[in-house]
Amino acid sequence: MKNANSILFILILIIVPSFFVLTCFGQSKDEADDLINYVNPLIGTGGGGNVYPGPTTPHGLVQLGPDTDMRNWSDGYSYDDSVIIGFSMQHLSGTGIPDLGDFAFVPSTGKMKFVPGMIEEKTKDGNHYSFNPDSGYCQPFSHKDEVAKVGYYSVRLPKYNVLVELAATPHAGIMRFTFPKSDSSNVMVDISHVLQWKVIWSRVRRLSKTLVTGFHLVHGWAAERYLYFAAEYSRPYDNFGIMLDGKRVYYNTYRFRSKYEATGDDIQYYTTYNTEKNRVVMVKVGISAVSSANALQNLKAEIPGWDFDKVVKDCRSAWEKEMRKITITGSTAEKQTFYTALYHTQLDPTIYEDVNGEYRGLDLNIHRAKGFTKYSIFSLWDTFRAEHPLMVLIHQHEDADMINSMLAHYDQSVEHLLPIWSLYDNETWCMIGYHAVPVIADAIMKGVKGFNYERAYNAMKTTAMNPHYDNVKTFAKLGYVPFDKENESVSKTLEYAYDDYCIAQTAKKLGKENDYKYFMKRAMSYKNLFDPTWKLMRAKDSKGNWINPFDPYKYSRTITEGTNWQYTWFVPQDVQGLINLMGGDKYFSTKLDSLFMKNKQDEEFDVGNSGQIGGYWHGNEPSHHIGYLYDYAREPWKTQSLIREICTKFYYNRPNGLCGNDDCGQMSAWYIFSVLGFYPVCPSDNFYVIGTPGVKEASLHLWDGKTFTMNAINFSMENKYIQSVTLNGKKWDKTYIPYDAIDNGGKIVFVMGSKPNKNWGTAPESVPPSVSKATIN
Amino acid sequence: MKNANSILFILILIIVPSFFVLTCFGQSKDEADDLINYVNPLIGTGGGGNVYPGPTTPHGLVQLGPDTDMRNWSDGYSYDDSVIIGFSMQHLSGTGIPDLGDFAFVPSTGKMKFVPGMIEEKTKDGNHYSFNPDSGYCQPFSHKDEVAKVGYYSVRLPKYNVLVELAATPHAGIMRFTFPKSDSSNVMVDISHVLQWKVIWSRVRRLSKTLVTGFHLVHGWAAERYLYFAAEYSRPYDNFGIMLDGKRVYYNTYRFRSKYEATGDDIQYYTTYNTEKNRVVMVKVGISAVSSANALQNLKAEIPGWDFDKVVKDCRSAWEKEMRKITITGSTAEKQTFYTALYHTQLDPTIYEDVNGEYRGLDLNIHRAKGFTKYSIFSLWDTFRAEHPLMVLIHQHEDADMINSMLAHYDQSVEHLLPIWSLYDNETWCMIGYHAVPVIADAIMKGVKGFNYERAYNAMKTTAMNPHYDNVKTFAKLGYVPFDKENESVSKTLEYAYDDYCIAQTAKKLGKENDYKYFMKRAMSYKNLFDPTWKLMRAKDSKGNWINPFDPYKYSRTITEGTNWQYTWFVPQDVQGLINLMGGDKYFSTKLDSLFMKNKQDEEFDVGNSGQIGGYWHGNEPSHHIGYLYDYAREPWKTQSLIREICTKFYYNRPNGLCGNDDCGQMSAWYIFSVLGFYPVCPSDNFYVIGTPGVKEASLHLWDGKTFTMNAINFSMENKYIQSVTLNGKKWDKTYIPYDAIDNGGKIVFVMGSKPNKNWGTAPESVPPSVSKATIN
Repeated sequence: MKNANSILFILILIIVPSFFVLTCFGQSKDEADDLINYVNPLIGTGGGGNVYPGPTTPHGLVQLGPDTDMRNWSDGYSYDDSVIIGFSMQHLSGTGIPDLGDFAFVPSTGKMKFVPGMIEEKTKDGNHYSFNPDSGYCQPFSHKDEVAKVGYYSVRLPKYNVLVELAATPHAGIMRFTFPKSDSSNVMVDISHVLQWKVIWSRVRRLSKTLVTGFHLVHGWAAERYLYFAAEYSRPYDNFGIMLDGKRVYYNTYRFRSKYEATGDDIQYYTTYNTEKNRVVMVKVGISAVSSANALQNLKAEIPGWDFDKVVKDCRSAWEKEMRKITITGSTAEKQTFYTALYHTQLDPTIYEDVNGEYRGLDLNIHRAKGFTKYSIFSLWDTFRAEHPLMVLIHQHEDADMINSMLAHYDQSVEHLLPIWSLYDNETWCMIGYHAVPVIADAIMKGVKGFNYERAYNAMKTTAMNPHYDNVKTFAKLGYVPFDKENESVSKTLEYAYDDYCIAQTAKKLGKENDYKYFMKRAMSYKNLFDPTWKLMRAKDSKGNWINPFDPYKYSRTITEGTNWQYTWFVPQDVQGLINLMGGDKYFSTKLDSLFMKNKQDEEFDVGNSGQIGGYWHGNEPSHHIGYLYDYAREPWKTQSLIREICTKFYYNRPNGLCGNDDCGQMSAWYIFSVLGFYPVCPSDNFYVIGTPGVKEASLHLWDGKTFTMNAINFSMENKYIQSVTLNGKKWDKTYIPYDAIDNGGKIVFVMGSKPNKNWGTAPESVPPSVSKATIN
Repeated sequence: MKNANSILFILILIIVPSFFVLTCFGQSKDEADDLINYVNPLIGTGGGGNVYPGPTTPHGLVQLGPDTDMRNWSDGYSYDDSVIIGFSMQHLSGTGIPDLGDFAFVPSTGKMKFVPGMIEEKTKDGNHYSFNPDSGYCQPFSHKDEVAKVGYYSVRLPKYNVLVELAATPHAGIMRFTFPKSDSSNVMVDISHVLQWKVIWSRVRRLSKTLVTGFHLVHGWAAERYLYFAAEYSRPYDNFGIMLDGKRVYYNTYRFRSKYEATGDDIQYYTTYNTEKNRVVMVKVGISAVSSANALQNLKAEIPGWDFDKVVKDCRSAWEKEMRKITITGSTAEKQTFYTALYHTQLDPTIYEDVNGEYRGLDLNIHRAKGFTKYSIFSLWDTFRAEHPLMVLIHQHEDADMINSMLAHYDQSVEHLLPIWSLYDNETWCMIGYHAVPVIADAIMKGVKGFNYERAYNAMKTTAMNPHYDNVKTFAKLGYVPFDKENESVSKTLEYAYDDYCIAQTAKKLGKENDYKYFMKRAMSYKNLFDPTWKLMRAKDSKGNWINPFDPYKYSRTITEGTNWQYTWFVPQDVQGLINLMGGDKYFSTKLDSLFMKNKQDEEFDVGNSGQIGGYWHGNEPSHHIGYLYDYAREPWKTQSLIREICTKFYYNRPNGLCGNDDCGQMSAWYIFSVLGFYPVCPSDNFYVIGTPGVKEASLHLWDGKTFTMNAINFSMENKYIQSVTLNGKKWDKTYIPYDAIDNGGKIVFVMGSKPNKNWGTAPESVPPSVSKATIN
């Protein structure tokens, strides 16, 4: 997902460093062969990936790390920035909109500052923000002093000569500050620190010389988000103070006020220490969306002592286990790109419950997750495409619990809707469609266990029948969303139709024949917006008139983040039907060719250095399946060439190695699938469309311990074309792989070559399934 | 307690209606003899009592009622006001500072308004507030259309011809609205409504056509107070809407927004109904400081159906049980004044836990009260004097749980302090001293069961040894609080000394001899501020110099809400010591006489129509024990005359029948004791000082079922002087009654006459006990 702002960010980011050497970091001998060593968390931190470099556990609630900015990046960090504001507890991974960045921990020596030093400049292009260490507590830093690896981040801040090291557990973080000799080595905590948005209320309470708790309520992208913390210090402080609204909180002798607590909307507190050279002070911080008591419980459960290195080690072990889900044969660079992508797919959704099982739900009440692990951060418009399908292959238990979490959301929704874009159990209503549906449908269709199908089906159906949400009701009535009633009406029509296809498939599986028919009819609604003249999707008003004027190359308010040229292809449930509408394979593939050509529409549509090939925009999700569509038109070699081009051009092992927002793992999950040689073009259908393998060998260790292996004979960068395939020992001429052939374990062997084999996968019966049958060939 | 603002209010209130006929209200035949019929909740709603007229259960969390103002009255209602803004869920009873008044429910017909109609006028005397029905939703009302009785309040609002009836359970309220014929009969709820202070954040969620939940966070006198509600309607609405920041929340077609929920700091919502004439719509509302789930649970537990009359009846039954704790023989007017006072003593502290035992503690975490009922609203500077001593006599279990609640507060306090002035488990730091101590000490000394004495003692001692609180540490070192270090230094010195006396008594009882000696030394500190020249208490600086200039008749910053002339008498633990300092009984009583004379100091010190007799100010607590001090100087007839004067002059059965803030029952508890003929001058000492009976007969039904009766032979208004006394059948010449003589059940008989009997109670051995022995007579 990419919002309008992020496009601006990307334009700013065109000037990315052209040279980057991967930071080397020390490792013990027995870790030398670990796959986590190929992960470089700095990949994607520049150039628009909007991922964060700090330590986190797989799906951890805590993402501890540096913030180099509070306004411009959704994750708070850009490789191109030159100051660090502080180290905060939570970060989003590659979203289009900023939030989180809770509580800035800022080390220093001597006199402290309590404002970050943000300079706001108003220009006619809008407000611009920069950070000046002379004006506040932000400090310059250099990448040569920075180490980012799995489970560990460190940076030496030269201004006060403080070494900062960070590590994380699921619900807590630990910071190790190595100070110089000073009579005032400080750890200042800005409770009002949050990315972009506003702290509405906050509190701090000093419980002892080594324990402080607090909270803030943030009105942000998540409209009402509570975060509590408990910070324990390795050493009793020498001095302690609280700042409220820029003033020191002191003992008042008129009407008593304690200097040990404060409540308000602008609070900082600090502890200071008299330190000898290289003296270490550690702070460990538990967080919770429920209460400071839970934050402390989380902390005590996960970091009982002060063994920083053990926290690093445990985190790295957990990630190593994750990385071993997929082993590949490839160059170091290939492995770095691949494992960093795999790492990015296992960040979100995050655990959203405390160690005692409590969480703050959509209804803001405190619930206890019974029988499942509660997750949040559901960027579903993005992640239904490849992120969740990847979870189905390697983490079915977790995927089921993510679905259970969505069902809990549904139960608590005033609109009886499944989550659209849920952030810490706030519904942000971001993006369009109801894409919890394909996630759930995909799991049901693939037999994922661990949630109740009937309950889930009821939630899916009720969501699709909602009388208020974004003209779904009108869609059901007219067969399309009219542009005079609703923005982004073309995108919504196409996505509703797809989501409804998913419901129909589930209805059929669950024996609900009438529902199947009803939703299949809705699934075919895409046809209503196909303009046979333009051979493109085009908006209609409620009276059935085509929109005029019509410019399919431009960003349009009838399209979600893109152009009609891009969105026309979103009929994953019935690509053959689209081919038929276009007049057959040849017309279809010619039209598709035009999308990838650098021509007029490319000039009209320019999203900067953000994954463009002609009018195709890999930097945003609506394009993600398009490269695979040539398979349906029996020109699979074009898919093979394109997928190879995208994999190598838009994914690499440098800070700007992601061409667009990672969107909670979707951008990376696309890569993982594509490197393996296949992709879930239509989640809820039980097949994957074949692209081209991106490495020589890969083993996919499935959720239940089985293994599916991929071999690419004659693999090289030049040999990007599939010559032939065997699946589980048998010759395979289809351009798709049934789910069963993977899920039961097995083996696919690609034989590669430098020239297209136009005889492979081009028979009429080779193409991936669609609802419609071919009518013209 | 009376703050500076309230004095202003009182001045405004000098113009109170001079005539008032008690509203008659219907009652069933079997209720005709009920004592609750003597309670008139309108007594004290004018003239400065600051009590509220709406229904509530004994110590109920809910105090449902009308708000006639949002700025001028701490309870939101004044008998002298002419508009009703709305009906809100919670009210303070007679405090000096406003808070609560949560969520205004406003019935109307036709077009709705969403602002209250407050007009702010800035003058050189400060800002003045008034309410104009043309500018907002406030509506005129008249007392002729109003009924206020125990457990029931009703008013007909003529503007829209709506009859409003209110009833309450401990955690919920029910409102019955009888509408005229209208196609839009409305119940609007202003979630931003609160008395005086500011809603920081709020939320509303419509769950069905009959159920809405919400909350607000208020930064008020309680710095961070959360209140949740669940409102259930007796009838599905015809229309529903939410207003956010003055604008209607609608379904947004650009980025979806639900019209069923909103979050922000200025929210109203409404339900409307098409009604025939006299159509009833009821709303029942549960509240909770924990969550909307708990609010709903509270509601469902206490008002499962729609039997409004049953809620009224149950509430009245509970109060009837309370009233029967003390039966008196007297005129209707005497009973009205007495039972209304008794009613006022059983409002605060309020239950502060949900039906499931959960409460939001001082640390803002959710706790479960284990083995006790959690209470809040501890106006301890006021209530240690007579309110809690009354609880010890009639409600020891409840008093023990109030102490358990204070100990929970202590456990959660960052300063390790017992509550000073706790409001919904926020520490307001209002007033001075540490008067949880006398409450706990009084209970320990009287053997109240139900809390741990050692734990309680530890909390008392730690509180008194706090190194930060209001120069207690300096007090311990110097023997007084110096005025150059601390405001209200004279009052603080005297009150610390008294509180320390209470700790000393407890230490002795618990066998802590060293602590006893230490705190007894501190208890005698009052002597250090006695100026032998003025024979008054006078502030000293930290070098030991008396303050100059010195005007003992004026409000002083060295005194808490009063003058040196008033505060000199606050040595309840050692009145004889004060007598000695003054030079003996004669000098003492002459000085005391001068306090009650209308003379120069009366002009200097003028608090309006607020319980003044010369420089004596019954309208505020520091004077409350003073009338009883003549007993110590062997002139008990002066006490008898004064107490009779105060009882008749400052307490009566009209809206202005309270001369000052009721202060959570203290003003009324003074009256209850005084009418019975005795008063706890020094709580923690096990005796009561005799005044003069205020009725002919009384039976005090003690907490354990025993009964103590009082007979006043020859009782009349003229016969205010005690001629002789028998206690439990024996002649009694002492001017005090030992606690045991009451607690074991028994009987006191006063023989009254119109002339003082100067031979009764005037022997040296007759006077109430003091630490010091008489040195001069």
